[in-house]
Amino acid sequence: MPAPSPLFKSKEAFEALFRPQSVAVIGASTAPEKLGYQIFKNILDAGFPGTVYPINPKATEILGHPCHPAIDATPEQVDLAVIIIPAPLVADTIRHCGKRGVKGAIVISGGFSEIGPEGEVLQGQLVEAAQKANVAVIGPNCQGVNNPHHPLCASWPLLTRRGGVAIISQSGTVGAALMDWASQEELGVSTFVSLGNRADVDEADLIHYFSQDPHTETIAIYMEGVKVAPKFLEAVRQCQKPLVILKAGRTPKGRKAAESHTRSLAGRDEVYEGAFRQLHIHRASDLEQLYDFSKALSYLPRPKGPRLLIVTSSGGSGILATDMAEMTGLDVAPLPDEMARSLRDVLPKHCIVANPLDLTGDATAEMYRQVVEAATSHFDTVALIFGDPIPGASEVVGKEPLQLVIYLGGAEVERQERLRFHRKGIPVFPTPERGIRALGELLR
Amino acid sequence: MPAPSPLFKSKEAFEALFRPQSVAVIGASTAPEKLGYQIFKNILDAGFPGTVYPINPKATEILGHPCHPAIDATPEQVDLAVIIIPAPLVADTIRHCGKRGVKGAIVISGGFSEIGPEGEVLQGQLVEAAQKANVAVIGPNCQGVNNPHHPLCASWPLLTRRGGVAIISQSGTVGAALMDWASQEELGVSTFVSLGNRADVDEADLIHYFSQDPHTETIAIYMEGVKVAPKFLEAVRQCQKPLVILKAGRTPKGRKAAESHTRSLAGRDEVYEGAFRQLHIHRASDLEQLYDFSKALSYLPRPKGPRLLIVTSSGGSGILATDMAEMTGLDVAPLPDEMARSLRDVLPKHCIVANPLDLTGDATAEMYRQVVEAATSHFDTVALIFGDPIPGASEVVGKEPLQLVIYLGGAEVERQERLRFHRKGIPVFPTPERGIRALGELLR
Repeated sequence: MPAPSPLFKSKEAFEALFRPQSVAVIGASTAPEKLGYQIFKNILDAGFPGTVYPINPKATEILGHPCHPAIDATPEQVDLAVIIIPAPLVADTIRHCGKRGVKGAIVISGGFSEIGPEGEVLQGQLVEAAQKANVAVIGPNCQGVNNPHHPLCASWPLLTRRGGVAIISQSGTVGAALMDWASQEELGVSTFVSLGNRADVDEADLIHYFSQDPHTETIAIYMEGVKVAPKFLEAVRQCQKPLVILKAGRTPKGRKAAESHTRSLAGRDEVYEGAFRQLHIHRASDLEQLYDFSKALSYLPRPKGPRLLIVTSSGGSGILATDMAEMTGLDVAPLPDEMARSLRDVLPKHCIVANPLDLTGDATAEMYRQVVEAATSHFDTVALIFGDPIPGASEVVGKEPLQLVIYLGGAEVERQERLRFHRKGIPVFPTPERGIRALGELLR
Repeated sequence: MPAPSPLFKSKEAFEALFRPQSVAVIGASTAPEKLGYQIFKNILDAGFPGTVYPINPKATEILGHPCHPAIDATPEQVDLAVIIIPAPLVADTIRHCGKRGVKGAIVISGGFSEIGPEGEVLQGQLVEAAQKANVAVIGPNCQGVNNPHHPLCASWPLLTRRGGVAIISQSGTVGAALMDWASQEELGVSTFVSLGNRADVDEADLIHYFSQDPHTETIAIYMEGVKVAPKFLEAVRQCQKPLVILKAGRTPKGRKAAESHTRSLAGRDEVYEGAFRQLHIHRASDLEQLYDFSKALSYLPRPKGPRLLIVTSSGGSGILATDMAEMTGLDVAPLPDEMARSLRDVLPKHCIVANPLDLTGDATAEMYRQVVEAATSHFDTVALIFGDPIPGASEVVGKEPLQLVIYLGGAEVERQERLRFHRKGIPVFPTPERGIRALGELLR
């Protein structure tokens, strides 16, 4: 493990931001349509284990919790402040937070650098106040933080599913979409961090932190541009975990839009392409790939080599998988004679014993098991494509060799089996193309 | 409309196959784990409006319906036979079907050309019997037919949602996956046909039929190879509706697998690529594109031109959309001064009035409406990206100019709004990239 570095925010700061014992919601509201109400409620509903203080000078209580007029008025020291008040009030509030012992602040409020010169002045004041008060700030202009492992849902929507992917996003919506997909699939996330304007904490700090976070297997990042290149490079070089990045602004007009959104240089795409390759960063080319790659890298080990056997109950799906494997550089190698012979002995005569191996529509879970057993010493990965409702599918998948599961066309049975797989920590991919493409990424 | 052609199966044959007044399920079973039970039950559960005869010499009744020992024993003429009996019995059964007035047969049974030389003999006998008896045959070795507009679900899984896409698939699973997605999204299909071995009815017959089917807006095809090239070309040339094709077997190994699966020449991919381009066929490069393109082509008109305005509550999503638009050849044109000025007058100050137009996280449905109104004479399409739970989103989308809806990151609100949109016939796409890519296809 690398020594603590003054380049990055301290672990102590992140403990306050992601694992606080107490939280003040400054700007908590009694009006259900307001973010100040929704975030306060989400913190409660997700089951935050410590004390939550709503701060609002005009209310006496919110959702049964007594309100305090200001952070100074809380009965004891507070670890984290979640701030949802007009931009001109934020810097001063952070100053008061520092005095009250607050070590981290999540600033949801917008109205800073993203709105132009006058917002930039306010953001400068915020940064200065945070530095003087020794408060680590996420945001401003962000969608907050959600750490289901604590749990702390200082964000929206309310999602509580625990998993292994840390999501760091310059776009709140993109991060929320990823988190929602993971939640729907019962996979969950380790932590979601919406970066906002990155006035203080940036992606490099978070890569450094999540590299050492025991709940995080993979770090998924949506970004429009790196904030500080040398710091980012150092964080990536030290990072012990797979990094998957979707970098938006690849085309000239996209880049211009990115620069307008983040008010910073997005940089030429070729520069990112080259740097990502050198740094062994997994580059996703769209939102679904960011999700798929992170899922594969979190829940599957690296295959020992490129040899891939495709086993399917659906001939068509086997062909689609073969096409994608070929395009991804995997090796859909022929079956060794000995293996083919032994499989022809046990499988029904109508099965096509080749690669892809087509068990046809009356495939059983047992047939898949037999093929996996026979493949052990000959293939690095077996892709199991379930193309019909196959009872007991989730019972037969083991560890050796690596098994990639793809399930489609099974309607309700498929949806239930997928959740069964996921509860066992086995990821299921929804199409042959998406599954095989993600597998290819494990070998990069 | 083209004159009836002896090249293609008659409309009468397809009426029997897709809209029969009576159905015999030959090989209906009392055992719930058997296809002969499941298909019989699906026909009943989907609400088939005519008479259903289970045919099984060993049973007296199935699911409350009296069994007949053979097709000859039914009390009246039957339009359609669904056949799920061992392959060696099929040809003779079709002969008897012909005598009973049956005009169409869906042969689910496997054990024909797909298993090798002895199956090929049986398939030859089947074809000969069908021709002599004047019975149009779908299959054998197929997953059946589902026409929710009749309704007739002689297939599985049980899906009943009506929609505008006809699915023709050489793979049962691939077709079922498409149909299941459409059903989950409450869009539905016009008809699903699993081609199986294409011993008789082939994709060209179906293109010809669906081109004139009033319920069909778009024809989506999964294929591994064309059966009879001149017939296919003629059907495509006559076709009045958009055709989207996913052709598997693009790589050498994929092609080899396709030839093994369909026992026919899959053909070089470059040949297909060239022919598809010449014939104005929309070529999908994966399963999700086949779905997305068909959805866009069924539910959206062709834009008048390439000028695209992107309006979003999520800056990041706007950038991802811009990148994809640029890569797809759409024109993310700057806002005319006059339009920008008038929008700056009505929109909150913090909105970024450009293209993409970023309404930011506190966007309301009304702001989207204002932008669409202002865009009318300047843009051919407005892409509306909803990146937060925005109440009333489904209320503001109109017809002029063309509006493309993308919704992500909204969790439960998003899922509900998506269904509301779909019930109005407005398709919603799940990511900026998928939505914009599908829009690009409308201009091809």
